[in-house]
Amino acid sequence: MKLDVCFSPDLLPCYDLLGKVVVVVDILRATSTIVTALGEGVTHVFPVASLEECAAYGQQQGCLTAAERDGLPAPGFDLGNSPFGFLTAGRPFAGRALSISTTNGTAALRRSLAAEAVVCGAFLNLEAVAGFLRQQHRDALVVCAGWKGQFCLEDTVFAGALATRLASEFDVASSDATLAALHLWQQAEADLPAYLLQSAHVRRLNSLEASHDFNFCLRLDAYDVLPIWQHDRLVRF
Amino acid sequence: MKLDVCFSPDLLPCYDLLGKVVVVVDILRATSTIVTALGEGVTHVFPVASLEECAAYGQQQGCLTAAERDGLPAPGFDLGNSPFGFLTAGRPFAGRALSISTTNGTAALRRSLAAEAVVCGAFLNLEAVAGFLRQQHRDALVVCAGWKGQFCLEDTVFAGALATRLASEFDVASSDATLAALHLWQQAEADLPAYLLQSAHVRRLNSLEASHDFNFCLRLDAYDVLPIWQHDRLVRF
Repeated sequence: MKLDVCFSPDLLPCYDLLGKVVVVVDILRATSTIVTALGEGVTHVFPVASLEECAAYGQQQGCLTAAERDGLPAPGFDLGNSPFGFLTAGRPFAGRALSISTTNGTAALRRSLAAEAVVCGAFLNLEAVAGFLRQQHRDALVVCAGWKGQFCLEDTVFAGALATRLASEFDVASSDATLAALHLWQQAEADLPAYLLQSAHVRRLNSLEASHDFNFCLRLDAYDVLPIWQHDRLVRF
Repeated sequence: MKLDVCFSPDLLPCYDLLGKVVVVVDILRATSTIVTALGEGVTHVFPVASLEECAAYGQQQGCLTAAERDGLPAPGFDLGNSPFGFLTAGRPFAGRALSISTTNGTAALRRSLAAEAVVCGAFLNLEAVAGFLRQQHRDALVVCAGWKGQFCLEDTVFAGALATRLASEFDVASSDATLAALHLWQQAEADLPAYLLQSAHVRRLNSLEASHDFNFCLRLDAYDVLPIWQHDRLVRF
């Protein structure tokens, strides 16, 4: 079994997804937020591309709505793209469905649906993802959401952390992208927040006063939750 | 001035090339071979996409022809894609023009022509590229040829070596791709051949009995030669 990494959704046409498990990753913040939402009791998640579609799920199906554009909460929705939206005392959102539209993560997910299975990965559920891949006995591809099509350090470092956990079961050496992700994780591992504070995207996010999001999204294995695509939604596996 | 890195020609639509200097890099082996050809006296180079076009330049303009497909010399041409083709004693090709068609490098070059200037980079002419960029006072983008659209370690590590040389004149910290390239170069620098022998592409090439090409292409600053695009060809700057 081979573990490969795709650094941008725009490179997906170079990869054959058939029969593979795809792990979509958007550490800051879509997949971290989706893992948190399901971990805090949300029943299922509709990831959608447009703000209009997101609002329509709210109006027609009574979904909780969450939307972000360019790192800021979009006006007119219940929540933005911060995992802390779901960490309110009393878990007021438990038992509800969520529709969420984000800049990069939703697009990456929707473009991966030709795969055998599509799951969401984040540092928050790293071991849940690793355990699932060990059970599937299929080639796997990590699809980094990136930033507007471009390479992102935090998603890549996640891919390296996953490859490290799977190194004894998967071939992690026959793809240059996986090797690069592994090497970058080795540099980042000792102090992940300090390493990622170099990143342009991280600094952009922190300048939006979302630095508590940043620290939360870098916690490893906080949730034993695996969001998996079924029909038209993400549910807990 | 900012130095950015694009890991695949397929990501070029995400970048604005206007007003920038593009450095096209295909270490194994197109840009290394073009640098060597110009360094050994070839007057100019026509990089072409198809074998038919490459042959036509030979028949109609008397060019020396060089072509490779999937790492092997294409039949019916004067040379393959090995720099050693130009290192024959007596420099029999000095004063001649060359048409060359390669799998990835030519395509990367042709897709970069919207830039203000397009030059070819290789370890062999690293300082020539760095010196040119210092003089231009423009943003620069390294375009890695990659392997069939996918990320390649050797082209990325070159980008990191270039960023290291330019770190005091250019902003090399505001792009995650440039940061990753810098970090990978730091890991590779002490023993570049050993580092790159991990790469799938390098192992593929070595299995084609081209390991002497590999070692040659990793020599730093062997040629003070800068191939630059003019009208329809690459010439020495």
